[in-house]
Amino acid sequence: MALLGCGNVGSQVARILLSDADALAARVGARLELTGIAVRNIDAPREADLPRELFTTDAEALTRNADLVIELLGGIEPARSLILTAIEHGAGVISGNKALLAADGPTLYEKADAAGVQLSYEAAVAGAIPILRPIQDSLSGDRITKVMGIVNGTTNYILDQMDSTGASFDDALAEAQRLGYAEADPTADVDGLDAAAKAAILASLSFHTRFPLESVHCEGIRSVSAADISAAQDAGYVIKLLAIAEKLHNDGAEGVSVRVHPTLLPRRHPLAAVRGAFNAVFIEAESAGELMFYGQGAGGTPTASAVLGDLVSAARRIVLGGPARTETTTGHVPVLGIDDVTTSYYIGLDVADQPGVLARIAHLFAEQGVSIETMRQTIHGNGGQLQQATAELRIVTHRASEAALAATVRAVKDLDVINSVTSVLRVEGV
Amino acid sequence: MALLGCGNVGSQVARILLSDADALAARVGARLELTGIAVRNIDAPREADLPRELFTTDAEALTRNADLVIELLGGIEPARSLILTAIEHGAGVISGNKALLAADGPTLYEKADAAGVQLSYEAAVAGAIPILRPIQDSLSGDRITKVMGIVNGTTNYILDQMDSTGASFDDALAEAQRLGYAEADPTADVDGLDAAAKAAILASLSFHTRFPLESVHCEGIRSVSAADISAAQDAGYVIKLLAIAEKLHNDGAEGVSVRVHPTLLPRRHPLAAVRGAFNAVFIEAESAGELMFYGQGAGGTPTASAVLGDLVSAARRIVLGGPARTETTTGHVPVLGIDDVTTSYYIGLDVADQPGVLARIAHLFAEQGVSIETMRQTIHGNGGQLQQATAELRIVTHRASEAALAATVRAVKDLDVINSVTSVLRVEGV
Repeated sequence: MALLGCGNVGSQVARILLSDADALAARVGARLELTGIAVRNIDAPREADLPRELFTTDAEALTRNADLVIELLGGIEPARSLILTAIEHGAGVISGNKALLAADGPTLYEKADAAGVQLSYEAAVAGAIPILRPIQDSLSGDRITKVMGIVNGTTNYILDQMDSTGASFDDALAEAQRLGYAEADPTADVDGLDAAAKAAILASLSFHTRFPLESVHCEGIRSVSAADISAAQDAGYVIKLLAIAEKLHNDGAEGVSVRVHPTLLPRRHPLAAVRGAFNAVFIEAESAGELMFYGQGAGGTPTASAVLGDLVSAARRIVLGGPARTETTTGHVPVLGIDDVTTSYYIGLDVADQPGVLARIAHLFAEQGVSIETMRQTIHGNGGQLQQATAELRIVTHRASEAALAATVRAVKDLDVINSVTSVLRVEGV
Repeated sequence: MALLGCGNVGSQVARILLSDADALAARVGARLELTGIAVRNIDAPREADLPRELFTTDAEALTRNADLVIELLGGIEPARSLILTAIEHGAGVISGNKALLAADGPTLYEKADAAGVQLSYEAAVAGAIPILRPIQDSLSGDRITKVMGIVNGTTNYILDQMDSTGASFDDALAEAQRLGYAEADPTADVDGLDAAAKAAILASLSFHTRFPLESVHCEGIRSVSAADISAAQDAGYVIKLLAIAEKLHNDGAEGVSVRVHPTLLPRRHPLAAVRGAFNAVFIEAESAGELMFYGQGAGGTPTASAVLGDLVSAARRIVLGGPARTETTTGHVPVLGIDDVTTSYYIGLDVADQPGVLARIAHLFAEQGVSIETMRQTIHGNGGQLQQATAELRIVTHRASEAALAATVRAVKDLDVINSVTSVLRVEGV
C-alpha cells in the first residue's frame, strides 16, 4: 500500500495507519502494510511524526509496486498519471482529489472499470461526511430528485461571520484568512470553483450520469453584501453558498441542473443551522423523502477518516475477493443550462411610498409571467417629509425561469417609482 | 426474490419493485423478479394495488425457493424461522425487523456468516436514514466513541408537542394517537422498548461487539412532565428521548454503556432541531469528529427506500459474486451497567429563599463528589410575605456517576431549606 502526498490529510492517514494497525487489521482480515510515502521534499516539516525510512521521492516506482494506492497530492499532474499507472498495474485507488475527479473523472472511472479495479473518493466531497457511499449504495433502490450541499467550509465560515457579526465580505474574508480557514489566494473557494467540482461529483453519482465540470453553472460569494445578509435576516432567511443538482421538468426542458450560487434558505431549513466551517448535504429522494448528512468538511484528521473508510473497503476486497464497485452511468439525463432552470427568487426593492406602487409592481410581475409568493413592505420614517417617503419591498416569487426573472427585473427598474433594486437572490427550501 | 409481509412497508416495497423495475435492473445488472408475497390473509386491504397472483399464504414454500428473501413481517415468529430457512437455502436476507434482530440477532448473524449469505437490515434503524452502512463501511477506518440517536418518531413527536404547546404527556400522547403517530397500545414506543432495540443494533455495529437487548438500560418518557419541559426551556434545553451508546473510561470501569432515557440537550445541539416524527443519529468518532444523519424514521415509502437499497446491494452480489459483508465482532468491549455510567445531570430544586442556601447546597454537592457546572437561581415574588419566599434553583453538574448523583439527591432532600426536588434529568451535549 502506497501513500502519495503527505500534507494535511496524508500525514494523518499515515499516522493512523501506523498507530491503529491492529484495529484496522481486525476489520480488514489482514494487516495493511504501508510500503512508502511519496513526497517532493523528504525533509519538509510534517504534522505527524513518521518513520523517515518510509519517505521516497520516487512516486512512480512506489506506485508500480503497490496493490493499493492512496493519492492525496491534489492538483492534476502528477496525480493523474500516477493514478493511471496504479490502475494499469491493477492496484485499487483511493483519492481525495476533487479537482482531478471533476476535471477528468470519466477517463479515470473508465480505465478503472476496464481494469476491474476500484476507484474510491469519499474524501473528495464534504470531508469526513459519509455521502458518496450512501448515495451509491444506500440510495441505490431510490430515485434522488435533488441534492443541495454546503460543501465548502471557507465560504460557509465567511457567510456565517457576515450573518452573525454584520461584517462585510472583505472583512469576513480577511478574518477567515487570519484564522487559516481561507487561503492567501481565496479564488477557488470564494468564486465557487471548489464547490463546483464537488457539485459535479455529487450530481454524477446521484443521477447516474456523468456531468463534466463545464456543465456546472458557478457563481461565488464576492457579490454578497452586508446589505443582502441583513435583508435576508429581516425576511427570515440565511444566505448559504449551495452546490445544487436538481431534476427539473419544465415546459420544453427536462433534465438535471447542476449549479453553485449564493442562496437564500429559510432559517427553519436544516441546512440553515450549519454553522462555521461545517459541511452538510441535503438530499431529496422519491421514496426516502428528505435526508441530511452533516459533519466536518475539511481538516486533516476528519478527511483521513473518509480516506481510511475507503481503504478498509478496498483492502477487504483484496482479501476476500469480489467485484469492484463501479459507477452506474445508465441515467443519460440531459444537462440543463442555467437559462432553463426555474427557482424561486428574492427581490429587494427600494420604492417610493405612494399609493398604488404595490399594485403597479404586482401587475408588472404578472405581465412577465412571474408569480409572487410573498410581498412585504416596510415603510421608512423620513422625519415628516411625506413627499420623499420611501418603502422597502421584499418579494419572494414562485418558481420562475432565469430569463423571465431577468426580464422582470429590467422592467421593474424602468418604473418611475423604483429608487433601486437592492438584491436579486435565488431562494431554495420554500 | 420473495417478499414476506405486505403491510405498511411491504406494500410499498412491492409497488416500487414493480413500477421501477427498469431502473432497478440497470443498477443491479439483472432484472429482479418478485416471485411472491407471503401474507396471512390474501384478501386483506393493501396500501398499493398489487397483482393478486403474487400473493400466497405459504410463506415457507415461497422462502425455500427464493435467492433473496425480504422479511417485513415484524415480531419474533414466524419471522425468525423463515429467516433461518432462507439462510439454510443460501438465500440473502433483507429484514427490517428490529425486535427480532435485537432479541436474537447474534444467532441470525452467525448462521448467515456460516452459510456465507448476507443479512442486511438498514430499515431496522431510523427508517429511511442510511445509518448502518455508513457505520459499517464509511467509518470502518475510524473509531466511534459515541452514538446518540433520536430513533423513535412517536416519542419525538410527543416531546416536540409538549415542548411547543406546553401540553401534558397524556394530552400529547392522545393527540399522537389521534393522528396515527402512536399506537392504541403505546408501550413499545413510550416506554423506550423500540428505541432500546435500535440502541442495541447501533451499539453492536459501532463498537464491533454484540450487545444483547438485556444490556440496554431503558427509561421511557411517561415520567416527563410539562413542568420538566418548561424548566428545560427556561434553562435553554430541550428534552429528547435518546438512544445512547458510549465508550466510557471511568475509574475502575471501562467499557460501553448502552442506554435509552429522556435527556436534556442544549438548544444549539444539532439533535435539538430534530422536530416532529423525524429521526436523526449523531455520531462522534476519533478522526471524523461529529457527524449527523437526519431523515424520516418511519412510514411505508421512506422505510421501503432503505429496504430497496439493501436489496440492490444483495442482488448485485448475486449477479457479480463476492463475499457477504459480515459484521466484525472483534471489539470485545465490556458492557457497563447504568451504575457505572457517568453523565451530566440537571437538577431542579424548590428552595427557601434564605441567605446561605446556595452555599449549603454547593457544599453538600462537593461532599458527595459531584461537581457543579452551572447553578442558576430564580427568586419567586410572594406578595411581600418575606418569611415564605422561595427560589427555584437549577443545577447542571459535570459528569457524575449514577450512584453519586442518587446519594446527592437523597442528601439534598434532607436539607431543611429544600421544599422539593422538581426534576432530575440526564444532560448530554454540554
